Amino acid sequence: MRRPVRIAVTGAAGAISYSLLFKIAAGEMMGKDQPVILQLVELPHAMDSLRGVAMELMDCAYPLLHTITLHDNVEDGFSNAHYALLVGAKPRGPGMERRDLLEENAQIFARQGKALNDFANRDVKVLVTGNPANTNALIASRNAPDLSPSQFTCLTRLDHNRAKGILANHCGATTRDIGGIMIWGNHSPTQYPDLHQATILGKPAMAQIDTTWYRDEFIPKVQKRGGEIIEARGLSSAASAAQAIVDQMRDWVLGTEPGEIISMGLLSDGSYGIAKGIFYSFPVICNYGRYQIVQNVEINEFSRQRLTATEQELLDEKAAVEEMLPKETEASHQSLSICLRSGVTLYADNTGPDADSKFMTTNRVL
Amino acid sequence: MRRPVRIAVTGAAGAISYSLLFKIAAGEMMGKDQPVILQLVELPHAMDSLRGVAMELMDCAYPLLHTITLHDNVEDGFSNAHYALLVGAKPRGPGMERRDLLEENAQIFARQGKALNDFANRDVKVLVTGNPANTNALIASRNAPDLSPSQFTCLTRLDHNRAKGILANHCGATTRDIGGIMIWGNHSPTQYPDLHQATILGKPAMAQIDTTWYRDEFIPKVQKRGGEIIEARGLSSAASAAQAIVDQMRDWVLGTEPGEIISMGLLSDGSYGIAKGIFYSFPVICNYGRYQIVQNVEINEFSRQRLTATEQELLDEKAAVEEMLPKETEASHQSLSICLRSGVTLYADNTGPDADSKFMTTNRVL
Repeated sequence: MRRPVRIAVTGAAGAISYSLLFKIAAGEMMGKDQPVILQLVELPHAMDSLRGVAMELMDCAYPLLHTITLHDNVEDGFSNAHYALLVGAKPRGPGMERRDLLEENAQIFARQGKALNDFANRDVKVLVTGNPANTNALIASRNAPDLSPSQFTCLTRLDHNRAKGILANHCGATTRDIGGIMIWGNHSPTQYPDLHQATILGKPAMAQIDTTWYRDEFIPKVQKRGGEIIEARGLSSAASAAQAIVDQMRDWVLGTEPGEIISMGLLSDGSYGIAKGIFYSFPVICNYGRYQIVQNVEINEFSRQRLTATEQELLDEKAAVEEMLPKETEASHQSLSICLRSGVTLYADNTGPDADSKFMTTNRVL
Repeated sequence: MRRPVRIAVTGAAGAISYSLLFKIAAGEMMGKDQPVILQLVELPHAMDSLRGVAMELMDCAYPLLHTITLHDNVEDGFSNAHYALLVGAKPRGPGMERRDLLEENAQIFARQGKALNDFANRDVKVLVTGNPANTNALIASRNAPDLSPSQFTCLTRLDHNRAKGILANHCGATTRDIGGIMIWGNHSPTQYPDLHQATILGKPAMAQIDTTWYRDEFIPKVQKRGGEIIEARGLSSAASAAQAIVDQMRDWVLGTEPGEIISMGLLSDGSYGIAKGIFYSFPVICNYGRYQIVQNVEINEFSRQRLTATEQELLDEKAAVEEMLPKETEASHQSLSICLRSGVTLYADNTGPDADSKFMTTNRVL
């Protein structure tokens, strides 16, 4: 047995976590040979409910679940965490403007960024799910001056999986037959689900589907899928969100399959002309615990308009929370490393070999 | 890829299924190389909600999830099923006596037994979770004259896992260090969680724990765990029940680990002096898709009293639903096969080689 890894989860008594935690404990996220310690964080008033969830986790007798700890504050909850899943967020209440929502969550995620900076492991990997996820990720990252921005991501895998599932269903294929799905931009209705690189059974998808269906039905369906689920179930999509979290973290940590492309929200390095300094969903591949943006994807005029629209929304969101973004981290969020040897974007997380080492540096392309 | 197996699930829009289905589709139950077809059954008024669950399953883009079909009746839903998970049951309403509950569920499970008999695959494996699970399993089995009673089981794995988790937590061990847990009898507060054969790190558990703690705290805690969860969460234990279903089916289909003992509710063959003709939880091992009761477990006086008390409750429940138990299946439920060569109880499900074959019979001990 390996040494357990510490996984902190906020909003741990909520609906998404009720699906998520039982998948993590079963080994679905970190692998069937990796014990886990769950550090569960909730608001003080939800601690009874959280204790009930912890009892149920115990009641499953998971061989990989080493320890569960419960916390009513993130400073304790993030201590020594290797992974932090920021699931909790303040939902939009009645009569609340989007700007109010942004601001209320900004407070929460600024504190969480600071707590990660001060208490988590140095190589912590962070996934923000709580909405507005992209901007919340930016706030957390900007408030963690000692961590690399590359350690923060936000969830667009749910949109990616939805696009894949809906396309497969439309074509009578299984999801195993589908590749090259890309989600660009914000995890919001402005997101752009791009099928121009997608394949069905190895052949280009756009040649096999009707363009009108793609533009007028598929894109809005993926964008508004959350609402469609709420309408049918009367509850928001929790189990599929949990699965998307598991999928993204597993791929980030254990690597994507050869040839597989996934979508992740991450700090823009300027690829595809997207403004630096915002969290934007790009197509990526993962290996060795790093992610790289897939480069040289052809962007036609239709796509460009959509990339720009969702970029603009993120710039607007950023402007609305500007006061929560410390000046000291502005520079680090504008200048990410690019790996010259591989020609692809690489996010350095400062855990690789030091290029100035006087003894030996392999300078391998990661 | 193998040919998909068909898994029918009742109560598919309920809370347990909301955890269960996403585990099945991820390959947690049947293995990571076994595609599945989910045949989801709900009451007519819950079909909208069920459609929402199906959309979320689609949204996870599970490579192993071949097809989802939705049904508002069990006759369609059980068609050609290889596995049937009977999760749905009528819950106890306000002012309802236990007898009323038994009778209302008896109607439901009699119809489900008939439907399995008439429409499911000949070798269907059935797991009843809906309460009262043991007696519901008996009713279903007795109403399926063409199936072997050995094809029906009820869930006590949740109690088994709870006992394991609680013991591990009490001792500061992990569940990986615990073996030999046994749950006897009814899935109700009369169940008997037996630690006399249990081991902690390979050594007898009873020598490492306080007998008073075992009798006065551990046993009632396991028996009443469901209530404790409801008190903390405000909701009944759904995720841990789902995990227990996954665990039991996986072990039944893929086999238990060498040396591992699990607990399953199954038709008594008279082992340990338990009356034939009731569904009772025994310690079993599984292999080749069959289960065998572990024999020669020492039963001391303390244990015997508890085995008898829970047996009596099951006989009483049986008496209350007697009119729903067709006479034609009485004999088959009193005379199960015993495997003479291995000396252990064996439940024949009539899918092995025919002993009268005039060409060749290996008569291997299964």
